Amino acid sequence: MPSRSTSKVAVSSVGRAQAAKPPARARPVAKFRLRITTGDVIAVGPGKVALLEAIAQTGSITAAAKHLDMSYRRAWMLLDELNRALKKPAVDSAKGGQHGGGSEITDVGRQLIELYRRIELAATQACQDDMSRLVKLLAR
Amino acid sequence: MPSRSTSKVAVSSVGRAQAAKPPARARPVAKFRLRITTGDVIAVGPGKVALLEAIAQTGSITAAAKHLDMSYRRAWMLLDELNRALKKPAVDSAKGGQHGGGSEITDVGRQLIELYRRIELAATQACQDDMSRLVKLLAR
Repeated sequence: MPSRSTSKVAVSSVGRAQAAKPPARARPVAKFRLRITTGDVIAVGPGKVALLEAIAQTGSITAAAKHLDMSYRRAWMLLDELNRALKKPAVDSAKGGQHGGGSEITDVGRQLIELYRRIELAATQACQDDMSRLVKLLAR
Repeated sequence: MPSRSTSKVAVSSVGRAQAAKPPARARPVAKFRLRITTGDVIAVGPGKVALLEAIAQTGSITAAAKHLDMSYRRAWMLLDELNRALKKPAVDSAKGGQHGGGSEITDVGRQLIELYRRIELAATQACQDDMSRLVKLLAR
Protein backbone atom coordinates (compact mmCIF):
# COMPACT_ATOMS: atom_id res chain seq x y z
CA MET A 1 0.00 0.00 0.00
CA PRO A 2 1.46 3.43 -0.83
CA SER A 3 2.68 5.35 2.16
CA ARG A 4 1.65 8.95 2.52
CA SER A 5 2.99 9.35 6.02
CA THR A 6 4.06 12.84 6.99
CA SER A 7 6.31 11.62 9.75
CA LYS A 8 9.44 10.98 7.75
CA VAL A 9 12.45 12.21 9.61
CA ALA A 10 15.46 12.31 7.42
CA VAL A 11 18.41 12.73 9.73
CA SER A 12 21.54 13.37 7.72
CA SER A 13 24.61 11.35 8.55
CA VAL A 14 27.68 12.77 10.29
CA GLY A 15 29.01 15.87 8.59
CA ARG A 16 31.43 14.61 6.01
CA ALA A 17 32.34 16.46 2.87
CA GLN A 18 29.80 15.57 0.19
CA ALA A 19 31.22 13.93 -2.92
CA ALA A 20 30.05 15.35 -6.23
CA LYS A 21 28.49 12.08 -7.39
CA PRO A 22 25.39 10.63 -5.72
CA PRO A 23 25.96 8.41 -2.66
CA ALA A 24 26.17 4.66 -3.13
CA ARG A 25 23.34 4.06 -0.64
CA ALA A 26 20.06 5.83 -0.17
CA ARG A 27 19.95 8.10 2.87
CA PRO A 28 18.56 6.38 5.98
CA VAL A 29 15.07 7.57 6.84
CA ALA A 30 13.50 6.99 10.26
CA LYS A 31 9.73 6.70 10.21
CA PHE A 32 7.05 6.04 12.81
CA ARG A 33 3.93 4.13 12.02
CA LEU A 34 1.01 4.12 14.40
CA ARG A 35 -1.45 1.27 14.39
CA ILE A 36 -4.49 0.68 16.53
CA THR A 37 -5.41 -2.97 16.70
CA THR A 38 -8.47 -4.69 18.13
CA GLY A 39 -7.50 -8.30 18.47
CA ASP A 40 -5.90 -9.35 15.18
CA VAL A 41 -7.51 -6.56 13.16
CA ILE A 42 -5.62 -3.34 12.38
CA ALA A 43 -8.51 -0.96 13.01
CA VAL A 44 -6.55 2.19 12.21
CA GLY A 45 -3.21 2.34 10.44
CA PRO A 46 -1.25 4.36 7.89
CA GLY A 47 -3.04 2.84 4.88
CA LYS A 48 -6.52 3.65 6.13
CA VAL A 49 -5.57 7.18 7.13
CA ALA A 50 -3.99 7.83 3.71
CA LEU A 51 -7.20 6.55 2.12
CA LEU A 52 -9.35 8.87 4.24
CA GLU A 53 -7.16 11.82 3.27
CA ALA A 54 -7.47 10.91 -0.41
CA ILE A 55 -11.27 10.71 -0.11
CA ALA A 56 -11.31 14.10 1.63
CA GLN A 57 -9.30 15.49 -1.29
CA THR A 58 -11.06 13.81 -4.19
CA GLY A 59 -14.60 13.41 -2.86
CA SER A 60 -14.96 9.83 -4.08
CA ILE A 61 -13.73 6.35 -3.20
CA THR A 62 -13.04 5.59 -6.87
CA ALA A 63 -10.80 8.64 -7.31
CA ALA A 64 -9.10 8.07 -3.96
CA ALA A 65 -8.34 4.44 -4.82
CA LYS A 66 -6.94 5.49 -8.20
CA HIS A 67 -4.83 8.19 -6.53
CA LEU A 68 -3.35 5.58 -4.18
CA ASP A 69 -2.91 3.00 -6.95
CA MET A 70 -5.30 0.66 -5.12
CA SER A 71 -8.26 -1.31 -6.44
CA TYR A 72 -11.73 0.04 -5.73
CA ARG A 73 -12.50 -3.26 -4.05
CA ARG A 74 -9.54 -2.95 -1.66
CA ALA A 75 -10.40 0.67 -0.82
CA TRP A 76 -13.99 -0.28 -0.13
CA MET A 77 -12.93 -3.18 2.11
CA LEU A 78 -10.54 -0.98 4.10
CA LEU A 79 -13.28 1.62 4.62
CA ASP A 80 -15.78 -1.02 5.63
CA GLU A 81 -13.30 -2.42 8.17
CA LEU A 82 -12.60 1.09 9.47
CA ASN A 83 -16.26 2.07 9.73
CA ARG A 84 -17.06 -1.14 11.61
CA ALA A 85 -14.24 -0.45 14.06
CA LEU A 86 -15.46 3.07 14.86
CA LYS A 87 -18.40 4.15 16.98
CA LYS A 88 -19.59 6.32 14.06
CA PRO A 89 -18.48 5.95 10.43
CA ALA A 90 -15.54 7.95 9.04
CA VAL A 91 -16.95 8.07 5.53
CA ASP A 92 -20.50 8.63 4.39
CA SER A 93 -21.22 7.21 0.96
CA ALA A 94 -24.98 6.80 1.18
CA LYS A 95 -25.59 8.88 -1.92
CA GLY A 96 -25.89 7.05 -5.26
CA GLY A 97 -24.94 3.46 -5.98
CA GLN A 98 -21.83 1.59 -4.99
CA HIS A 99 -19.74 3.31 -7.67
CA GLY A 100 -22.18 6.11 -8.43
CA GLY A 101 -22.42 8.86 -5.84
CA GLY A 102 -19.62 10.72 -4.15
CA SER A 103 -18.28 9.96 -0.71
CA GLU A 104 -17.81 12.40 2.10
CA ILE A 105 -15.56 12.34 5.11
CA THR A 106 -17.59 12.71 8.30
CA ASP A 107 -16.61 14.76 11.34
CA VAL A 108 -15.32 11.55 12.90
CA GLY A 109 -13.20 10.91 9.80
CA ARG A 110 -11.75 14.42 10.01
CA GLN A 111 -11.02 14.01 13.74
CA LEU A 112 -9.35 10.68 13.05
CA ILE A 113 -7.03 12.13 10.39
CA GLU A 114 -6.15 15.12 12.56
CA LEU A 115 -5.39 13.07 15.68
CA TYR A 116 -3.40 10.48 13.75
CA ARG A 117 -1.18 13.02 12.00
CA ARG A 118 -0.75 15.09 15.17
CA ILE A 119 0.34 11.97 17.08
CA GLU A 120 2.87 11.05 14.40
CA LEU A 121 4.29 14.55 14.42
CA ALA A 122 4.48 14.81 18.21
CA ALA A 123 6.09 11.38 18.46
CA THR A 124 8.69 12.29 15.87
CA GLN A 125 9.47 15.62 17.50
CA ALA A 126 9.80 14.00 20.94
CA CYS A 127 12.63 11.72 19.78
CA GLN A 128 14.73 13.77 17.39
CA ASP A 129 17.97 13.41 19.34
CA ASP A 130 17.77 9.64 19.84
CA MET A 131 16.61 9.24 16.24
CA SER A 132 19.76 11.05 15.09
CA ARG A 133 21.89 8.81 17.32
CA LEU A 134 20.24 5.70 15.93
CA VAL A 135 20.63 6.80 12.33
CA LYS A 136 24.32 7.56 12.96
CA LEU A 137 24.89 3.85 13.70
CA LEU A 138 24.06 3.16 10.07
CA ALA A 139 26.58 2.98 7.24
CA ARG A 140 26.41 5.46 4.42
CA MET B 1 7.20 -12.08 12.57
CA PRO B 2 6.42 -12.13 16.28
CA SER B 3 6.15 -8.74 17.92
CA ARG B 4 7.96 -8.15 21.17
CA SER B 5 7.41 -4.43 21.19
CA THR B 6 7.28 -2.78 24.57
CA SER B 7 5.40 0.25 23.30
CA LYS B 8 1.88 -1.07 23.62
CA VAL B 9 -0.38 1.56 25.05
CA ALA B 10 -3.65 0.13 26.11
CA VAL B 11 -5.99 3.02 26.64
CA SER B 12 -9.20 1.79 28.15
CA SER B 13 -12.45 2.98 26.65
CA VAL B 14 -14.80 5.43 28.32
CA GLY B 15 -15.65 4.44 31.87
CA ARG B 16 -18.61 2.20 31.55
CA ALA B 17 -19.61 -0.42 34.04
CA GLN B 18 -17.86 -3.67 33.16
CA ALA B 19 -20.15 -6.58 32.37
CA ALA B 20 -19.31 -9.87 34.05
CA LYS B 21 -18.74 -11.74 30.78
CA PRO B 22 -15.81 -10.90 28.54
CA PRO B 23 -16.34 -8.07 26.01
CA ALA B 24 -17.47 -8.96 22.50
CA ARG B 25 -14.42 -7.19 21.00
CA ALA B 26 -10.80 -7.12 22.03
CA ARG B 27 -9.69 -3.90 23.65
CA PRO B 28 -8.17 -1.42 21.18
CA VAL B 29 -4.40 -1.14 21.54
CA ALA B 30 -2.39 1.74 20.06
CA LYS B 31 1.15 0.82 19.10
CA PHE B 32 4.05 2.67 17.49
CA ARG B 33 6.49 0.94 15.21
CA LEU B 34 9.72 2.61 14.24
CA ARG B 35 11.46 1.66 11.04
CA ILE B 36 14.66 2.97 9.52
CA THR B 37 14.79 2.43 5.80
CA THR B 38 17.60 2.91 3.33
CA GLY B 39 15.98 2.92 -0.06
CA ASP B 40 13.62 -0.06 -0.18
CA VAL B 41 15.40 -1.96 2.61
CA ILE B 42 14.14 -1.87 6.19
CA ALA B 43 17.53 -1.53 7.86
CA VAL B 44 16.16 -1.44 11.41
CA GLY B 45 12.66 -2.40 12.47
CA PRO B 46 10.76 -4.16 15.26
CA GLY B 47 11.61 -7.66 14.02
CA LYS B 48 15.35 -7.09 13.94
CA VAL B 49 15.37 -5.40 17.34
CA ALA B 50 13.38 -8.28 18.88
CA LEU B 51 15.90 -10.70 17.35
CA LEU B 52 18.84 -8.77 18.81
CA GLU B 53 17.18 -8.82 22.23
CA ALA B 54 16.62 -12.57 21.98
CA ILE B 55 20.28 -13.12 21.04
CA ALA B 56 21.37 -10.97 23.98
CA GLN B 57 19.19 -13.15 26.23
CA THR B 58 20.00 -16.56 24.83
CA GLY B 59 23.57 -16.11 23.55
CA SER B 60 22.92 -17.87 20.24
CA ILE B 61 21.16 -17.27 16.96
CA THR B 62 19.68 -20.77 17.02
CA ALA B 63 18.10 -20.28 20.45
CA ALA B 64 16.95 -16.76 19.59
CA ALA B 65 15.30 -17.94 16.37
CA LYS B 66 13.56 -20.75 18.26
CA HIS B 67 12.40 -18.30 20.95
CA LEU B 68 10.86 -16.08 18.26
CA ASP B 69 9.38 -19.04 16.35
CA MET B 70 11.50 -18.13 13.33
CA SER B 71 13.69 -20.34 11.13
CA TYR B 72 17.45 -20.19 11.67
CA ARG B 73 17.77 -19.19 8.03
CA ARG B 74 15.44 -16.23 8.42
CA ALA B 75 17.18 -15.08 11.62
CA TRP B 76 20.56 -15.31 9.90
CA MET B 77 19.31 -13.32 6.90
CA LEU B 78 17.85 -10.58 9.11
CA LEU B 79 21.13 -10.29 11.02
CA ASP B 80 23.16 -10.25 7.82
CA GLU B 81 20.94 -7.46 6.46
CA LEU B 82 21.24 -5.55 9.73
CA ASN B 83 25.03 -5.93 9.97
CA ARG B 84 25.44 -4.73 6.37
CA ALA B 85 23.31 -1.68 7.11
CA LEU B 86 25.38 -0.66 10.14
CA LYS B 87 28.82 0.93 10.27
CA LYS B 88 29.90 -1.84 12.67
CA PRO B 89 28.10 -5.18 13.20
CA ALA B 90 25.46 -5.59 15.92
CA VAL B 91 26.20 -9.29 16.43
CA ASP B 92 29.52 -11.06 16.53
CA SER B 93 29.29 -14.75 15.64
CA ALA B 94 32.87 -15.38 14.54
CA LYS B 95 33.32 -18.19 17.04
CA GLY B 96 32.59 -21.74 15.86
CA GLY B 97 30.84 -22.75 12.67
CA GLN B 98 27.61 -21.42 11.23
CA HIS B 99 25.47 -23.30 13.77
CA GLY B 100 28.26 -24.13 16.16
CA GLY B 101 29.55 -21.28 18.29
CA GLY B 102 27.56 -18.81 20.28
CA SER B 103 26.74 -15.31 19.15
CA GLU B 104 27.31 -12.14 21.10
CA ILE B 105 25.70 -8.78 20.89
CA THR B 106 28.31 -6.07 20.27
CA ASP B 107 28.35 -2.63 21.89
CA VAL B 108 26.71 -1.32 18.73
CA GLY B 109 23.98 -3.94 19.07
CA ARG B 110 23.36 -2.92 22.66
CA GLN B 111 23.26 0.78 21.72
CA LEU B 112 20.81 0.00 18.94
CA ILE B 113 18.42 -1.87 21.25
CA GLU B 114 18.61 0.83 23.91
CA LEU B 115 18.01 3.73 21.49
CA TYR B 116 15.20 1.91 19.70
CA ARG B 117 13.29 1.08 22.89
CA ARG B 118 13.89 4.54 24.38
CA ILE B 119 12.54 6.17 21.21
CA GLU B 120 9.42 3.99 21.27
CA LEU B 121 8.81 4.83 24.91
CA ALA B 122 9.40 8.57 24.50
CA ALA B 123 7.15 8.67 21.44
CA THR B 124 4.38 6.86 23.28
CA GLN B 125 4.65 9.07 26.34
CA ALA B 126 4.61 12.24 24.20
CA CYS B 127 1.20 11.41 22.73
CA GLN B 128 -0.81 9.84 25.55
CA ASP B 129 -3.66 12.36 25.43
CA ASP B 130 -4.18 12.27 21.66
CA MET B 131 -3.82 8.47 21.73
CA SER B 132 -6.65 8.29 24.25
CA ARG B 133 -8.78 10.59 22.08
CA LEU B 134 -8.10 8.45 19.01
CA VAL B 135 -8.91 5.19 20.82
CA LYS B 136 -12.17 6.73 22.09
CA LEU B 137 -13.39 7.03 18.50
CA LEU B 138 -13.38 3.24 18.33
CA ALA B 139 -16.35 1.04 19.13
CA ARG B 140 -16.17 -1.41 21.99
